[in-house]
Amino acid sequence: MRNIRLLIQYDGTRYNGWQSQEHTEETIQGKLTRVLERMLGEEIDLQGSGRTDAGVHAAGQTANFRTKAAVSCEEILDYVNRYLPEDIAVLEAAEADPRFHSRLWSLRKTYIYRIWNSPIPNVFERKYLYQVKEPLCVERMRQAAALLEGTHDFRAFCANGRIKKSTVRTLEQIKVEQKGAELSLNFTGNGFLYHMVRILTGTLLEAGLGKRKPEEMTQILMSLNRNQAGPMAPARGLCLWKVEYEDSDI
Amino acid sequence: MRNIRLLIQYDGTRYNGWQSQEHTEETIQGKLTRVLERMLGEEIDLQGSGRTDAGVHAAGQTANFRTKAAVSCEEILDYVNRYLPEDIAVLEAAEADPRFHSRLWSLRKTYIYRIWNSPIPNVFERKYLYQVKEPLCVERMRQAAALLEGTHDFRAFCANGRIKKSTVRTLEQIKVEQKGAELSLNFTGNGFLYHMVRILTGTLLEAGLGKRKPEEMTQILMSLNRNQAGPMAPARGLCLWKVEYEDSDI
Repeated sequence: MRNIRLLIQYDGTRYNGWQSQEHTEETIQGKLTRVLERMLGEEIDLQGSGRTDAGVHAAGQTANFRTKAAVSCEEILDYVNRYLPEDIAVLEAAEADPRFHSRLWSLRKTYIYRIWNSPIPNVFERKYLYQVKEPLCVERMRQAAALLEGTHDFRAFCANGRIKKSTVRTLEQIKVEQKGAELSLNFTGNGFLYHMVRILTGTLLEAGLGKRKPEEMTQILMSLNRNQAGPMAPARGLCLWKVEYEDSDI
Repeated sequence: MRNIRLLIQYDGTRYNGWQSQEHTEETIQGKLTRVLERMLGEEIDLQGSGRTDAGVHAAGQTANFRTKAAVSCEEILDYVNRYLPEDIAVLEAAEADPRFHSRLWSLRKTYIYRIWNSPIPNVFERKYLYQVKEPLCVERMRQAAALLEGTHDFRAFCANGRIKKSTVRTLEQIKVEQKGAELSLNFTGNGFLYHMVRILTGTLLEAGLGKRKPEEMTQILMSLNRNQAGPMAPARGLCLWKVEYEDSDI
């Protein structure tokens, strides 16, 4: 059996996320699987590096699948990009280590949350930005972000309150970048809990709007209580930017 | 009567152009006029710097209208951006010279035609790019573009064959820029004929694909015959980038 890895981009606006339990819903995994199965004439089990929520985008989602088919990776790339809808594209298809698994082997992920901080809407990138009309204090957001970096129990920033498994994760970096009216929050870490990036963003936005002091971040972490954190920011601003592996893995 | 000028952005994808004869169709001018009339309680005659075709975008369309209403430009800006659909935005509203007319006073316009030259689709900017999968030779396109610059009779590049008025225009510059897989054609001139930028682009693409020699541009111009030029490039890649005036005019 060959093991093929894919690098995938999608505009998540009209999808019900990467993966879904209900077979009637439109998902990115579902679209890709159907195109691959049509091409290869086999049942395909496409494993993504992780789920993305409904409406969340990906610039660098990864996935892998096993196949017996004798088609080249170039042929797979051509075929899927010809038949996928225009809001999903496969950037790379390559032969992988037979044991490679896009989720289990991933070392680190980066998500970017993009904010348009202006009363004037951004017409061209509106689907990839969350507009905040009131002025944000970037310095306060950076102070708050710095307190969230590191290895912590992020239970307060997890939408699933009843989770039994460990909610300890390492957030290596939260970089707050400003370019004109656009503010981007880059989150890099070894794993993310359900809705974690969006709740972190909603909380950092409260700090930027002056509704919270940056120092409160430490208390929120320690509370382990979802109600102490801020609201969940909308899906449209979030993008799974990249998934990293050890070079030798793939 | 006050004279108000507007700077407008739109994603033209779902509109039937800036202006339309049929009152049932959706146009950008129609959307803006309805919002302004609702706010100001007067009939508004909104004059754009020029029409854009169905599906064409604008990053810097200009328009002006006269009003007796005693509302500030800030109030106009706030109101229109609140009630316009999310694919239209007004970036600026300002008091203008009483004689200012966005079309008649314009000195120069710049259109940008964006091409995505790759077999891999661009998911995020797909609505603003025309994908050409076959490799384009940028050097040939630059050579061809240089022959089209200057003051010429552009009748061969005009969709309206029966035009009675002069078809002489000055194309100050056609700049061909390459950035990764993206190629942008920047057209600056004192006026553009019906479909002229899209026919110029279609012809330059033929030069880039090796279907025509760059030198042929001169013969096409001299033929004054639409059939000698290339096909019209699709609307989605075209954007009215800016309209320039003398500083003192506005």
